[in-house]
Amino acid sequence: VAITTALTRQLAINAPILLAPMGGVSGGALAAAVTQAGGLGIIGGGYGNREWLSRELDAAGNAEIGVGFITWSLAKDPDLLSIALDRRPRVMFLSFGDLAPFAGPIARAGIPLIAQVQTVADARAAVDLGAQIVVAQGTEAGGHGATRATLPLVPAVVDAIGPVPVVAAGGIADGRGLAAALMLGAAGALCGTAFYASTESLAHPAAKRTAVAASGDHTVRGTVVDVVRGYAWPERWNIRTLENAFSRRWSGDVDGLKRDLERQSKAYAAAQEAGDMDTAAVIIGEAVDLVRASESARDIVQRMTVEAEARLRAGERLIDTKR
Amino acid sequence: VAITTALTRQLAINAPILLAPMGGVSGGALAAAVTQAGGLGIIGGGYGNREWLSRELDAAGNAEIGVGFITWSLAKDPDLLSIALDRRPRVMFLSFGDLAPFAGPIARAGIPLIAQVQTVADARAAVDLGAQIVVAQGTEAGGHGATRATLPLVPAVVDAIGPVPVVAAGGIADGRGLAAALMLGAAGALCGTAFYASTESLAHPAAKRTAVAASGDHTVRGTVVDVVRGYAWPERWNIRTLENAFSRRWSGDVDGLKRDLERQSKAYAAAQEAGDMDTAAVIIGEAVDLVRASESARDIVQRMTVEAEARLRAGERLIDTKR
Repeated sequence: VAITTALTRQLAINAPILLAPMGGVSGGALAAAVTQAGGLGIIGGGYGNREWLSRELDAAGNAEIGVGFITWSLAKDPDLLSIALDRRPRVMFLSFGDLAPFAGPIARAGIPLIAQVQTVADARAAVDLGAQIVVAQGTEAGGHGATRATLPLVPAVVDAIGPVPVVAAGGIADGRGLAAALMLGAAGALCGTAFYASTESLAHPAAKRTAVAASGDHTVRGTVVDVVRGYAWPERWNIRTLENAFSRRWSGDVDGLKRDLERQSKAYAAAQEAGDMDTAAVIIGEAVDLVRASESARDIVQRMTVEAEARLRAGERLIDTKR
Repeated sequence: VAITTALTRQLAINAPILLAPMGGVSGGALAAAVTQAGGLGIIGGGYGNREWLSRELDAAGNAEIGVGFITWSLAKDPDLLSIALDRRPRVMFLSFGDLAPFAGPIARAGIPLIAQVQTVADARAAVDLGAQIVVAQGTEAGGHGATRATLPLVPAVVDAIGPVPVVAAGGIADGRGLAAALMLGAAGALCGTAFYASTESLAHPAAKRTAVAASGDHTVRGTVVDVVRGYAWPERWNIRTLENAFSRRWSGDVDGLKRDLERQSKAYAAAQEAGDMDTAAVIIGEAVDLVRASESARDIVQRMTVEAEARLRAGERLIDTKR
């Protein structure tokens, strides 16, 4: 049994589930496991650590996987794109910046381009530049994102760029969310939070435990996690994390954090290494309410698909033809 | 034909669609029209203008309608509740504040209490206080709201308070959104933006025209519209409106607005009266992309229901049993 959409046909996959390329978290083993379970795994190339990227591409073995980059960061070191394209990824995934310099080389390599956008206007621009699949990402997503929410964004993007397949991202971590995305006209879902605490995820074990115990009531969007890590993100995107002592201390005092940056950055890096999640961020989205255990990626894909199928079958029973 | 859920059974309605009690916009004629179309209309009692409320209750005629209040505002003038209860509304709807003082009198009057919440924690609290239906409202909603988004909030609330019926609010303005809400486990949808530009809405004609032409890319959450109107909203809720010259001028300079408040408030009130939407706010949500015309409430309810039914029927066809 499988769910068939424009996305599954285009990518020749069985489940309309893509792994979000979470930087430093979506490594080769996780991406490969999502692909082997019937979806498509995408490695989180992030800011472009070459050693990390090569290692994780190796770790994916023979599994077909994609590679994702942060577009504005890639623009500072465009050679990274060749390194990725040389490995013949199944797709290239770009988000957060101007696609124009990269769409041509990706097309010439014959690799499908998935563009993630946060507004209807950017969805139109992505298609004009040659994106073959567009991910409409809502503000409830973990990690970087913008202000619009998934539920109203997806149908608006579908209306704007159909028949280009639209994938919903942000807020989807179970079969109910996947079925909802399909009702909205999406051809599938891109999921990060759902896989953050998975067995194969490269997140710190302490971060996974914290995520499993967390409520979506306690995530926040902000800039302090980027400031302390030294990433100069453009203002229109910021990062959603679980609230913790560090975010509570500094989110109202970013200037204070900048004045104490050297000391705070060292402490932050040490906390990341040690798994001290009072200081280091658990980078997850609002759907973390639906993450109740650390499971294998295979179990997650299977559970989501089976639950979505059950919902899709049950939908028709809500229609009362006797009235 | 009708869609049957726990909500339609509990309220004996045909369509799982509730009209959001938009203050000053959801009057008696609109509420009655939504009820007559098969949903349930709820008058927007807002901050409690008694003359307005009595007039709109009269305007609803014999139609069964509900009445909604802003809870923290009602607490300042609790007699308003008796005025509403004396008219035997079909439901009482409360949002934004502590239900405790009002749940008892509403229960003793034998009127079902619908509580709107913005977090999982508040959903649990509302049920503990006796809410019979809980509306989970996402940040994409127009008007007042908080930070969590509808798509991940609804299933988390369903898991927390089931079998109490959960209604999804925020981001739903067509049948795709309604079908998606049902997939998430909601028993229906509460819609404001969908009805803001309707024939029966009390919004200014210029505001309706602006809404029909607007994109959801250009709504913002903020406080300036409340500051200029003199409403002392608690910090955890703010108001989503369409961005305009006024919001761009003052959203980064709330202190400046406060210093010039008398003059600005007069100009704002005059702009509201005149339909100058560069200054006065169009109070709509992100789903405004899906509002393409000013239609009657009956046409909106019918279009949403027919489209939701079509989506629900099509869902099962996505399942490929041959694989």
